[in-house]
Amino acid sequence: MAINKKYIIGVDIGGSKINTVIFNGSKIFKNAKIPTPKNNRKEFLEKLEILIKKLVSDIGKKEIYGIGCGIAGVLDLQKGVILNAPNLRFLNNFNVKNWLEKKFGCEVKIDNDARSFTRAEYLFGAGRGYKNIVGVTFGTGIGGGIIINGKMVYGANDSTGELGHMVINEGKDWEALTVKQARKLKFSKISVEEFKKNLGIGFSNIVNVLDPEIIIVGGGAAKTVGKFLPKIKTITNKLIISSKSIKNVKILVGKLGEDAGAIGAATLFNI
Amino acid sequence: MAINKKYIIGVDIGGSKINTVIFNGSKIFKNAKIPTPKNNRKEFLEKLEILIKKLVSDIGKKEIYGIGCGIAGVLDLQKGVILNAPNLRFLNNFNVKNWLEKKFGCEVKIDNDARSFTRAEYLFGAGRGYKNIVGVTFGTGIGGGIIINGKMVYGANDSTGELGHMVINEGKDWEALTVKQARKLKFSKISVEEFKKNLGIGFSNIVNVLDPEIIIVGGGAAKTVGKFLPKIKTITNKLIISSKSIKNVKILVGKLGEDAGAIGAATLFNI
Repeated sequence: MAINKKYIIGVDIGGSKINTVIFNGSKIFKNAKIPTPKNNRKEFLEKLEILIKKLVSDIGKKEIYGIGCGIAGVLDLQKGVILNAPNLRFLNNFNVKNWLEKKFGCEVKIDNDARSFTRAEYLFGAGRGYKNIVGVTFGTGIGGGIIINGKMVYGANDSTGELGHMVINEGKDWEALTVKQARKLKFSKISVEEFKKNLGIGFSNIVNVLDPEIIIVGGGAAKTVGKFLPKIKTITNKLIISSKSIKNVKILVGKLGEDAGAIGAATLFNI
Repeated sequence: MAINKKYIIGVDIGGSKINTVIFNGSKIFKNAKIPTPKNNRKEFLEKLEILIKKLVSDIGKKEIYGIGCGIAGVLDLQKGVILNAPNLRFLNNFNVKNWLEKKFGCEVKIDNDARSFTRAEYLFGAGRGYKNIVGVTFGTGIGGGIIINGKMVYGANDSTGELGHMVINEGKDWEALTVKQARKLKFSKISVEEFKKNLGIGFSNIVNVLDPEIIIVGGGAAKTVGKFLPKIKTITNKLIISSKSIKNVKILVGKLGEDAGAIGAATLFNI
């Protein structure tokens, strides 16, 4: 491979998969993934290191400009610390930025995985041409990214978009009543109806609060949610207060597939 | 009164009161209010006209630069039409901007009442010095205003901040389960506990989605909600996912009292 450019590694650490890409700012050169090691921190880091090393093996470390890393959890973005990863608790209080910098000798930036997904879809996918976007990832949990007037919104503590933790019924939150419940239940007719209803409630809450142009669905369960979108729209239409929002808001599945999060993490760097 | 400046009229049309002020960009010269006429559009407009005429009587129409009008409802801001005022249905599809312009011969700008409240508290009240603010008005219904990086967020259809319409339990929304329920019930111990719990759920949903520095409480029921804030904070702390947000977010009652909405409406004009 003849290389006269620098490359970025994008890493997307989710509750069930780790996706990685080599990216040059517009194109994927290579990708690789593994199931997320769930036993302990040591095993997790060993397997993550092997995954990235293999990925960069035919490019070489010195061609790597930086690593962008998306993580499903609440983060301290400046320090690079994972504060609270509810679905990967053994990573709590781990400084993933320092660790990656030491292992790979390049600059590292981190962000929430759902924000990474949203950024990628905004730049290259279903969100192109829109300025007010909410990205929602359905996987082990539910995450969210919020773009307003073309800018990612981080909030006072880098913790915007925790959409899965909106309480929507009987003290339980959106993720408990949708993706988590779905894994526990053998879907009977009634539970599928409940699933769709609860999805619809969450989406209408998002529209009533944020009034986006478009909601983009991603994550491992994106296709399942996508299948229900016509029904979900019927439910949300009854709950959205603005007739203009009912008419105008689009809810659809992202275009970039399972690499979206890793691409969005890579685009934390502008080269 | 010796006048060499132009004045702005601020009007705040709520579900139970209409507040008005004469404002010069930093100071209130006079204020006046009436209970919101609830019978029909004709009576409403007659009484609103009398109220504003009386207010401007010792200044004179020609000193009025413009009228800023905050309204509890979903609006078409450009056209000046009230699309959906759930607590003043007889105003639905009424062009309040055109009507005020004709009656008073000056420029008129309209906005949602809760955004007006939030703008006033940001500029002159409890929100001074903050850049990421959510204002919540508790009155006949619940409204909201969202300021991110110092800018009011309007959304794709001017319908952000409809916080009262977040569904939080059994298909019912935040306003149904707090302010509306409170008016129906003679408060027994159990219903007060429910009221506080439901308030706490709504606030934690706001923090999990928007991660503001500060939430400012306003509206006719601001004092009642304010009394419960210590208990509400205990509830929200259990539901907010980010430990940094738990530690840092402030929830408090606005400083400008009942004129806040009218001041915020007046500041739609920059003079």
